Amino acid sequence: MSNLYKQDTQVNRNQRNQLHGHNSFVVWFTGLSGSGKSTIAATLQVKLYDMKINTYMLDGDNIRLGLNSDLDFSETGRKENIRRIAEVAKLFTDAGSVTLCSFISPYIEEREKAKSIVSPENFLEVYVKCNLEECEKRDVKGLYERARKGEIKNFTGIDSPYEEPENPDIEIDTADLSVEESVELILNKIKSRL
Amino acid sequence: MSNLYKQDTQVNRNQRNQLHGHNSFVVWFTGLSGSGKSTIAATLQVKLYDMKINTYMLDGDNIRLGLNSDLDFSETGRKENIRRIAEVAKLFTDAGSVTLCSFISPYIEEREKAKSIVSPENFLEVYVKCNLEECEKRDVKGLYERARKGEIKNFTGIDSPYEEPENPDIEIDTADLSVEESVELILNKIKSRL
Repeated sequence: MSNLYKQDTQVNRNQRNQLHGHNSFVVWFTGLSGSGKSTIAATLQVKLYDMKINTYMLDGDNIRLGLNSDLDFSETGRKENIRRIAEVAKLFTDAGSVTLCSFISPYIEEREKAKSIVSPENFLEVYVKCNLEECEKRDVKGLYERARKGEIKNFTGIDSPYEEPENPDIEIDTADLSVEESVELILNKIKSRL
Repeated sequence: MSNLYKQDTQVNRNQRNQLHGHNSFVVWFTGLSGSGKSTIAATLQVKLYDMKINTYMLDGDNIRLGLNSDLDFSETGRKENIRRIAEVAKLFTDAGSVTLCSFISPYIEEREKAKSIVSPENFLEVYVKCNLEECEKRDVKGLYERARKGEIKNFTGIDSPYEEPENPDIEIDTADLSVEESVELILNKIKSRL
């Protein structure tokens, strides 16, 4: 790609952070389907909005319906899914947003890749922990039932693995904590970075 | 994809526009390599920044080095390139940014598709017109010379077509207008939408 040059856009991230009055970074939520990732991220977003923080939420479901609608749920599809999301999250961080990414993102390798694409100093990993039994009991969208029946293939926790984070920046067990408690915990951790 | 649901993120575009104090939309610059698209878009971005407008610029070169680094310059690659950019521009519009997209985007069909992905009411097409002779004379990056030598294949204007916009929202002839004049012209057109 020698005929490509990185353009100096003349308005940089520092200037945008100055305009918004806060720093920008990625908060990456990982965990099983039904663990509460998106609920916690969405509630955090409302709190941040009330603090006049510029945020954006990238969500597995929303991204899958648009940018990544061409990808399947095979291992290859999941890897490309995470790669593209990380590239987009990097752009949003550059644009000055506190970028909330909520994805099952089951593989350690892919989360590490996402971190490296965004850049480690701008990436916080939040492990939304919840045991499979509890997630399956909740089954908000009825997906576990369909996965057990074999109607959905490659479903994380059922016939596709979930690799737990070894050293997440924040770990939340939603079998014990409420949404509000979880959000407060994250907010306390990220306040100093804003 | 029946196991996907569009999440209500609880902070919507209207709220973000309210936080920023202005509306969000896409300004899509199309034109030959060397026509001045990126220079004009970047200069416009500085002006908007000075007005405290929340902006972000998506640029062919930058996007090609990240999100779309897996795509080539074949017709299929170019189409997928534009599709993904439009999906990302849609996200930035949702996030509340005036999103400046600067891409050769040579095919009418693809630009129409981009407009439809973003949604027509949020999409302004700016045709940065400049005749091939002038672009080739400028040849800032030496790309035309290399394309003429056959070192770069599928180069728009040389061995790949450019389809002029039939009814752009704004048309600028950079063979006649300076960068400053071009930016003023665009700024006057978009002011009422901010």
